[in-house]
Amino acid sequence: MAAEHPHTRLRVIRAGIDTYQQPVVYMHRDCAVCRAEGFKALTRVRMTVGDRQVTATLNVVTGDHLAIDEVALSEAAWRAASPDEHACATFRHADPPASAGALRAKVFGARLDDDACLALMRDTVANQLSDIELAAFVTACAGDRLDVHETLSLTRAMVAVGETLDWGDGPVLDKHCVGGLPGNRTTPIVVAIIAALGHRIPKTSSRAITSPAGTADTMEVMTPVALDLAAMRRVVEREGGCVVWGGNVRLSPADDVLIRVERPLDFDSDGQLVASVLSKKVAAGASHVLIDMPVGATAKVRSDAAASTLTDRLLATGTALGLQLSVLRSDGRQPVGIGIGPALEAHDVLAVLRGEAGAPADLRDRALAVAGALLDLAPGAHRGTGLDLARQALASGRALAKFYAICEAQGGFTEPGAAEHRADVPAPRSGWVRAIDNRRLAKVAKLAGAPMSAVAGLAITLRIGDPIPVGAPLFQVHAQTVGELRYALEYVAAHPSIITITEA
Amino acid sequence: MAAEHPHTRLRVIRAGIDTYQQPVVYMHRDCAVCRAEGFKALTRVRMTVGDRQVTATLNVVTGDHLAIDEVALSEAAWRAASPDEHACATFRHADPPASAGALRAKVFGARLDDDACLALMRDTVANQLSDIELAAFVTACAGDRLDVHETLSLTRAMVAVGETLDWGDGPVLDKHCVGGLPGNRTTPIVVAIIAALGHRIPKTSSRAITSPAGTADTMEVMTPVALDLAAMRRVVEREGGCVVWGGNVRLSPADDVLIRVERPLDFDSDGQLVASVLSKKVAAGASHVLIDMPVGATAKVRSDAAASTLTDRLLATGTALGLQLSVLRSDGRQPVGIGIGPALEAHDVLAVLRGEAGAPADLRDRALAVAGALLDLAPGAHRGTGLDLARQALASGRALAKFYAICEAQGGFTEPGAAEHRADVPAPRSGWVRAIDNRRLAKVAKLAGAPMSAVAGLAITLRIGDPIPVGAPLFQVHAQTVGELRYALEYVAAHPSIITITEA
Repeated sequence: MAAEHPHTRLRVIRAGIDTYQQPVVYMHRDCAVCRAEGFKALTRVRMTVGDRQVTATLNVVTGDHLAIDEVALSEAAWRAASPDEHACATFRHADPPASAGALRAKVFGARLDDDACLALMRDTVANQLSDIELAAFVTACAGDRLDVHETLSLTRAMVAVGETLDWGDGPVLDKHCVGGLPGNRTTPIVVAIIAALGHRIPKTSSRAITSPAGTADTMEVMTPVALDLAAMRRVVEREGGCVVWGGNVRLSPADDVLIRVERPLDFDSDGQLVASVLSKKVAAGASHVLIDMPVGATAKVRSDAAASTLTDRLLATGTALGLQLSVLRSDGRQPVGIGIGPALEAHDVLAVLRGEAGAPADLRDRALAVAGALLDLAPGAHRGTGLDLARQALASGRALAKFYAICEAQGGFTEPGAAEHRADVPAPRSGWVRAIDNRRLAKVAKLAGAPMSAVAGLAITLRIGDPIPVGAPLFQVHAQTVGELRYALEYVAAHPSIITITEA
Repeated sequence: MAAEHPHTRLRVIRAGIDTYQQPVVYMHRDCAVCRAEGFKALTRVRMTVGDRQVTATLNVVTGDHLAIDEVALSEAAWRAASPDEHACATFRHADPPASAGALRAKVFGARLDDDACLALMRDTVANQLSDIELAAFVTACAGDRLDVHETLSLTRAMVAVGETLDWGDGPVLDKHCVGGLPGNRTTPIVVAIIAALGHRIPKTSSRAITSPAGTADTMEVMTPVALDLAAMRRVVEREGGCVVWGGNVRLSPADDVLIRVERPLDFDSDGQLVASVLSKKVAAGASHVLIDMPVGATAKVRSDAAASTLTDRLLATGTALGLQLSVLRSDGRQPVGIGIGPALEAHDVLAVLRGEAGAPADLRDRALAVAGALLDLAPGAHRGTGLDLARQALASGRALAKFYAICEAQGGFTEPGAAEHRADVPAPRSGWVRAIDNRRLAKVAKLAGAPMSAVAGLAITLRIGDPIPVGAPLFQVHAQTVGELRYALEYVAAHPSIITITEA
């Protein structure tokens, strides 16, 4: 190793720029470091601050925004370096990441073994891979380019580089829904039913990434979800179940990093999907897992053939990991429940748990189906009795009581609010509803403000096959500001095919 | 299309941040646009400034570096938007690029046809593809994943999206060297010989990307090279040849964009290499092209087998494009000439052209071989006579006179300078030189300051097979500052295997 260059010392300041997870450092074009090291824009540099070393991407600053002896750190770089006041940093070209050989081999057609996957996931969580290297990895694994063995190796590696929860002896139940279906918020209901029946179900959920609401967003309008591991454990020990945000728990953190390139690329890959889902389940300490798989033209899984292939991969990998796993295929053609958006979905959840007359029957039936299938999977279950058990727990009010108890344990229950501004979208003509575009419907809810505005979104009771007279409401948009309401309505006006109506 | 959101108007300022070619915009986390649009870090946004539309990647700013009603533009975004004073910008989510479908299809194993390649290259030059999408494209084409037909389609598309030079009737000669061999600066000599013999050779060259000197850097220490197309045309019309920097001419600009992800990924792909090289030759208006291909363990082409495969692809694609093309395989095991670095290489070039006693014989012989092979390829040539013609042009001084004339036409000739600080690297023991690591040798020259410091680099006369006594100089490092000299020497001390010496 060469010693550090004598002129490569810069004062560290905070740029206050969020570049997502990728550490970026900003240096002046004319600074001694850029000149001595031959750094240019996008050079990968290794920064040493005190006893910390951070690999980052360089952006070069011209003009007088930055002094010539300063380096400004993006938020991710600042967190990684955690510099003292008046800290200085030294720099050199970053060595190639340890997993560069494994990445290269995979790109050129080799198979990934356990060691290669572990090296790649270690570098992924340690931010040793740039976004373009991550994109290359995701591309090299896209489609069917990860076989069953590689999927298993990748899943194990993703578990190995994160935290793992240990719940001691006995079964731990869990569920997961593959791909977004707007409003399909069964989790709080399922957790309440399963825990009410005496099983353990320590559920971690995500916030919205591209959808109008994640389960954590919906749950958060009713109770705190940003619990740390110790608090989560106390809730589960007391009530048997919880619904908390997974972001504070660091289960399968490699998956969170890969998402930053998977999301914009949107390359489906059964292998990566399976590794993503199952690594989180294994890390969460689950032993019995039910996968809800909605299938439909505008859902994540678009055909029965795709569902079968994905199911086979999930079962093969899950079994190899020692999980008891079952897949429940469901209708993914249209939204579930009435509301789309955090608070609107929370109202649906509460209506089902409370057994209200206006509660959405489809959400109730789906939650019962998922809970029933999960109960059938549990040890000692009499196969086929799960659905009845779930129905009884819901009808008796035991599930509602358990839900309140879980919310209390998480920090207290709050009734969800409602949006100030609402507008109906009228049907442009009479006919029958032939199709509903889940993706565009989700987009309307997002334009209305969801999930940042928790009460924003939309309400839709219409379903495929329903008759609709001209002028009757297709759905209702909810927003906190007039601007957001108008924006969502403009999008609706520009996209008349969100609800396809067949002439009567 | 939905109308713009009413609150999405921000004042445009210049960030003064160089993010290489990718346009980046910086917005405050709490600004109306981020809130209304649900923008997050790395969101792809479409910005409208006046009648210009720019697709950019978002970075989110916290703190008080940026006002809440401002948007700051990176240099690439600033150039693309070219805003008036006091300009405002509006924003929306970027539509997926037109070539997203073609990219996706290629990633999932489909073949690229002409239309797909054209869509991809159009989006590439228009900055519609983010770095991670470009990385996905490069990865999907890596190794042997581009077949002959795709290579041809891609080459044609790269030509189509850039400028094309038209030199009128008659042959236009050109040469290209595949991959870096330090000091292999034959181009100025070859151009002088070919033009002295009455042929046209309008040569565009690149600056260093990862090497201590590009041909344009070396040429620039002797004459201006940053000529625009009109000036280049005047030089060629007057003298028959030129050596100018290609960056002002915009030949195959898609290639320049792809390089920004190919360089850090370093994925070899014959298809992309062929498309890169031949698109520039076709765009430059060449009709007869000689490809110099050094082969060696630390060269770009590492084996005879790799050289054969690449040669076949070059010939097949070149012929389909209507080029007369020939490939000259050469020794890529060690540097060529004495100097490595812009001015040091210029001294070698001049020594050869001037016929000086100390001129490096290997550089002279290579330049003659390349010129000879190119002359053999020219229309009306008697095959096998090219080398003699080249020798005569060099020995007679006609090549030197033509070189001076070309430099005059480009803006005047300047004698190259020399570095202030020099240090010999002594042999650690006696023996014979068994191998020379081209890549590490290039690294030493870069650490010494090349190419930013034009006179920096190193001089090496040692060749494989030479005897060396302990303490005799292996090579000499040249630098403009003591710091850079020390830095290069520290690297040398840490890497004793740059020159492998077999015990006597």
